[in-house]
Amino acid sequence: MSLLVVGSLAIDTIETPFGKVENVLGGSATYISIAAGYFVTPVRLVGVVGGDFSKEYIKMLEERDIDLEGLQIIKDGKTFRWGGRYHYDLNVRDTLYTDLNVFEFFNPVIPDSYKKTTYVCLGNIDPVLQSRVLQQIEKPRLVVGDTMNFWIKRKKDDLLKTLKSIDVLIINESEARELTNEPNLIRAGKEIIKMGPRVIVIKKGEHGALLITASTIFSAPAYPLENIYDPTGAGDSFAGGFIGWIAKTDDTSDENLKRAVIYGSALASFCVERFSLDRLKELDCLEITERFREFKAISDFNEGTVQ
Amino acid sequence: MSLLVVGSLAIDTIETPFGKVENVLGGSATYISIAAGYFVTPVRLVGVVGGDFSKEYIKMLEERDIDLEGLQIIKDGKTFRWGGRYHYDLNVRDTLYTDLNVFEFFNPVIPDSYKKTTYVCLGNIDPVLQSRVLQQIEKPRLVVGDTMNFWIKRKKDDLLKTLKSIDVLIINESEARELTNEPNLIRAGKEIIKMGPRVIVIKKGEHGALLITASTIFSAPAYPLENIYDPTGAGDSFAGGFIGWIAKTDDTSDENLKRAVIYGSALASFCVERFSLDRLKELDCLEITERFREFKAISDFNEGTVQ
Repeated sequence: MSLLVVGSLAIDTIETPFGKVENVLGGSATYISIAAGYFVTPVRLVGVVGGDFSKEYIKMLEERDIDLEGLQIIKDGKTFRWGGRYHYDLNVRDTLYTDLNVFEFFNPVIPDSYKKTTYVCLGNIDPVLQSRVLQQIEKPRLVVGDTMNFWIKRKKDDLLKTLKSIDVLIINESEARELTNEPNLIRAGKEIIKMGPRVIVIKKGEHGALLITASTIFSAPAYPLENIYDPTGAGDSFAGGFIGWIAKTDDTSDENLKRAVIYGSALASFCVERFSLDRLKELDCLEITERFREFKAISDFNEGTVQ
Repeated sequence: MSLLVVGSLAIDTIETPFGKVENVLGGSATYISIAAGYFVTPVRLVGVVGGDFSKEYIKMLEERDIDLEGLQIIKDGKTFRWGGRYHYDLNVRDTLYTDLNVFEFFNPVIPDSYKKTTYVCLGNIDPVLQSRVLQQIEKPRLVVGDTMNFWIKRKKDDLLKTLKSIDVLIINESEARELTNEPNLIRAGKEIIKMGPRVIVIKKGEHGALLITASTIFSAPAYPLENIYDPTGAGDSFAGGFIGWIAKTDDTSDENLKRAVIYGSALASFCVERFSLDRLKELDCLEITERFREFKAISDFNEGTVQ
């Protein structure tokens, strides 16, 4: 099995009510690759950074067996930088700045050695670029795509084109409603299935996640975290855990998609326990298995009967 | 086993995007009793109505084996009337009018024959009245109480006193946050446990429900309804299904509380499928069992392991 991840690499500055970190490694491709890397290696990464991208980060990614052949390094450019501040209610966030830098002109080029990749995860980038990635590769077994309200608002037609080539769309609750103009999430999910993807995963943050296919609805609980230090990267960690599990097991059945949602939720729950990548990059497989079982424990119940 | 329900009986006028009903039977005690009545009979009801309360309603309740010895009928008074309009997004509701009428001076009097009741469900009424009910009865095995933002805002001190005598508090997501000034629901639940109840059930509407005790967290899914015709009474139907199952099984273990949350969710999901009591009062036990199993099916997943 092989896995290709395309997305952003960024230098983040993050403030939450619990502290602040400055100029730390971030970006969707980074979180997805690190999360997926607990399930499959190597993870093939396609992205772009500037000459200011620390060699230490390169080393860290390589040590995790993330294949950087597809990483473009623009020597005289600067890496994408993002600053955000989360409120006391962590669902509310202000973007302090977004300096796209080299990411503004990102043109994903897929190395020949990546062209036969079995599983593909398209991080949240311009849907035009997502389509361009898919045009460069042989038909993979499964394409997972993420998007966001920015693209729904600004590039809806392009997004609708891209959706026709995506098998699994991972999307936030509010984005699912916005994309379909449908307040009911189950109906919204079914509307999105008509747009192309055969599987929709709706992330609901503290309320868990929904998996919707033509034949299945699965409701996954959220891990009951009392302390969320930094929500940055949670959605990308979810996507990485989700596609990582599927790539590892090479099984796209509905039952295995449910497990993938739980592994995605598990990786996201770890991600937010500390700042930036601090927790996500320090996991071991036993912790992940144990958390999977905790998800089972909090949602399990026995049958009763009305006599 | 015996079950006592105290709350309002009302004449409702309800508008939703799907239609309108005028002057139909409603009220928290009505919904709770009818829902609980699928599990235990008779349900002992304490409430108040005016001389305008239709004999047809009395007959319907009696036919369901709801014991009306505790129902006060104020011949020269009018029954509590409520009018509400739900928006396209059914989470948003305008109250069109609230005519308390005889309910304004409601003083719950517990008949002698009710004083040794095993299980008690206090619908959403003034916390002072909830306490007055509990003072009139011998210590029951379990007291379930509901409340709402109105009492949290207006009568917080009284509510805090009542909470000391309640075993299970059933509360909405936003109300749990408001009561504790805590945006994190898990922490909010644990804060409420410090106020008295040993069990907190947080209703999250389309996101399901959380059960929190000192030793257990249980996340119940929502039933994936595509068409919600009328949300009126959903919370009361939940409370009725919850306490009904517990009273029937006479088992207050954590594992059985989880089943009770699912039965509560099941009854609420039926309630909203049609207007007013139309669906809730036409159920049979097989439908309820079947829906319980559907809740299991949408939240169940098999273990996987990371090798």
